[in-house]
Amino acid sequence: MKNETYIADISQHKDQVVTVSGWLYNRRSSGKVHFLLVRDGTGIIQAVVGKKDVDEETFEKCKELPQESSLKVTGLVHEDHRAPGGFELHVNKVEIVHIAQDYPITPKEHGTTFLMDHRHLWLRSSKQHAILRVRHAIIRAARDFFDKKGFTLVDAPIFTPAACEGTSTLFETDYFGSKAYLTQSGQLYMEAAAMAFGKVYCFGPTFRAEKSKTRRHLTEFWMIEPEMAYCDLDGNMDIAEEFIEYIVQRILEENKEELKRLERDTSKLEKVQRPFPRISYDEAAKMLKDAGLDFVYGDDFGAPDETYISDQFDRPVMVHRYPAEVKAFYMKPDPADSTKALCVDVLAPEGYGEIIGGGQREDDYDKLIEKIKEHDLPMEAFEWYLDVRRYGSVPHAGFGMGIERAVAWICGLKHIRETIPFPRTISRIQP
Amino acid sequence: MKNETYIADISQHKDQVVTVSGWLYNRRSSGKVHFLLVRDGTGIIQAVVGKKDVDEETFEKCKELPQESSLKVTGLVHEDHRAPGGFELHVNKVEIVHIAQDYPITPKEHGTTFLMDHRHLWLRSSKQHAILRVRHAIIRAARDFFDKKGFTLVDAPIFTPAACEGTSTLFETDYFGSKAYLTQSGQLYMEAAAMAFGKVYCFGPTFRAEKSKTRRHLTEFWMIEPEMAYCDLDGNMDIAEEFIEYIVQRILEENKEELKRLERDTSKLEKVQRPFPRISYDEAAKMLKDAGLDFVYGDDFGAPDETYISDQFDRPVMVHRYPAEVKAFYMKPDPADSTKALCVDVLAPEGYGEIIGGGQREDDYDKLIEKIKEHDLPMEAFEWYLDVRRYGSVPHAGFGMGIERAVAWICGLKHIRETIPFPRTISRIQP
Repeated sequence: MKNETYIADISQHKDQVVTVSGWLYNRRSSGKVHFLLVRDGTGIIQAVVGKKDVDEETFEKCKELPQESSLKVTGLVHEDHRAPGGFELHVNKVEIVHIAQDYPITPKEHGTTFLMDHRHLWLRSSKQHAILRVRHAIIRAARDFFDKKGFTLVDAPIFTPAACEGTSTLFETDYFGSKAYLTQSGQLYMEAAAMAFGKVYCFGPTFRAEKSKTRRHLTEFWMIEPEMAYCDLDGNMDIAEEFIEYIVQRILEENKEELKRLERDTSKLEKVQRPFPRISYDEAAKMLKDAGLDFVYGDDFGAPDETYISDQFDRPVMVHRYPAEVKAFYMKPDPADSTKALCVDVLAPEGYGEIIGGGQREDDYDKLIEKIKEHDLPMEAFEWYLDVRRYGSVPHAGFGMGIERAVAWICGLKHIRETIPFPRTISRIQP
Repeated sequence: MKNETYIADISQHKDQVVTVSGWLYNRRSSGKVHFLLVRDGTGIIQAVVGKKDVDEETFEKCKELPQESSLKVTGLVHEDHRAPGGFELHVNKVEIVHIAQDYPITPKEHGTTFLMDHRHLWLRSSKQHAILRVRHAIIRAARDFFDKKGFTLVDAPIFTPAACEGTSTLFETDYFGSKAYLTQSGQLYMEAAAMAFGKVYCFGPTFRAEKSKTRRHLTEFWMIEPEMAYCDLDGNMDIAEEFIEYIVQRILEENKEELKRLERDTSKLEKVQRPFPRISYDEAAKMLKDAGLDFVYGDDFGAPDETYISDQFDRPVMVHRYPAEVKAFYMKPDPADSTKALCVDVLAPEGYGEIIGGGQREDDYDKLIEKIKEHDLPMEAFEWYLDVRRYGSVPHAGFGMGIERAVAWICGLKHIRETIPFPRTISRIQP
């Protein structure tokens, strides 16, 4: 009877004989003992293979076994505080499943292109492994947050019929003879859905054919977009800050090991607690001016501006009421100053830039029509969207958070390309 | 001080004065009293507005208020077992937020095209509302299942570089001068990821440009695809049946009200308990032959065949070991009979057809190369995939479940188009 177990559960099998199925992560050998580091995707354990514990052939094979070969090791679970993970395996049987070819990723430095070309293997590395575990935990926390608050998940469509805001950053596909475009945001659909369910969110991939080649851009990225009926800008900011606090605190709680492996300074994340500072665009602009930065009032903030602003605070900062002109047509103008939009961007600390963008939507039918005309958009494409203002229009608001930017910030990564399993950029759709 | 509440939470406010913000769902009036049915996305409550309770103008307005107008009603929460939901609101204040135009969806019968053209409004209807709540619950249950079992979520890419299996059912897009295709399945990526994490799943939209215009086909649909290292066909079937049982039992538990509204015969769902019958393709073929059905041995099953087979059982049936020829190149042949593949399709009861397809993958490098050649596929496109067999290959298996088919079955729907918020078919990408 084999007692198969995952390394993550090894502590439940103290002093028992178990079998672990995995891959050879690393090896040290003396003449009489091999120390095999075995990983199984849930953890890493040191398997100690003494010359007397196994037959001679197996012992010889272990000596030569290449990295990433697959094997099953059976042995006694031995508690040892010196061992990584607190346990090691005193092996009495080794079954080699497959002898790997020379593994291309070695401890030496590799260039980014090389690693990205081998992304399917690079995922096995300790750091990438940790990042994607945190990504999973962030997604789980994000969903839990909205589920617990009674939001209904309403998946937005990926294929959209009209190029509402110009085709320059849209991916286009032939759709049985007509044209379809890949979604850039589910927001308009969420507005309609919020009128049916009160509180909704969508979560899926979104697409931008942006020619930007920066460390912050992907062509394919995941967004979570809540939308709430009977909600204004203030209510929206309340939810946004609660949401971010929840995610960060859960990751701190659940992913200690991963954050340690990523050498993340968690003291900075611990400060991410409500209330977050809320400043207006005007106040932010003044900060930039006072600091002597080269910023033109009325423009949107650039990356250096965002970094400067966020550096003034120890937690995310919410910048609200941007000039209506730099924001989308559906933003509701501030009744107190119609040149401003009731919008908010949340800037992450440590120079990670905007992680959330949102605001209150124009809920007045006539004003929305005016805006669509002003922006020279095709009215016909918005007929269904106008219905939301024809049949029981209510104040409503929402926001979108890009998952990859949140992962980059929480993991403390320089480049967004490591935050998604198989990144797609202007120069990469492989593997 | 207003005491705002959602209708779903109304029982916590018995004998208190609360405000509910919502939309007018229906209305009955006598000369002295209006019975307003108000919905807020979380539920429906009857608001009783007596002539003496509000000012004359408001009372008159309520008389004419069109369906789906938005309003806030304030009043005393009164327990009444005759009222739907067990509570009604004795109103002392009505604030009309927006008077709706004539609502296009009325209680009379509408054609499907009309309803689908108004999908953004149709979502507000009781039945559609119930379906999408069940959809959300199914997705939540599916994720919970794998999360609890220690699977890591690894999002597969949507943009894929090569048209591996012919371009006829692929959506294509220009990708900065080269071509990209929208994913049909994340499986190949999951196989690589399983070698890094042991157990993984992806969950996202997938795309098929199928010209089929049937009640089972969408061009855009969501799939959950688990993949496990060190797993064979039997282990795969174990997980698949546990997964389906878990989802169905959770929906029965959590969505009683929705299933009732959908008039679902839940006694049929209650029978969905392990173990599920497991029959081979050969056994299934014999069943069809014995029944005198027009089925050619060696072919894949058609919809009527699947219906006949599933009708022989009171729970999902797992059909394994199809002829290798009708299955994909990556399927591992059965060592006992190499003309058969180690695959499994799970057929839902009540004629809902295949909801899961999966199997054990070819893990031998040389045999996989042979298969790629046999199927005339471009070897270069599979170099990265072959790496999974170069570096520590292990037996592995997995499956995919289409969310929409599961929703159709569990909700008891005739047509798949109602199982997704904004369906996309060969003839529809609107709204």
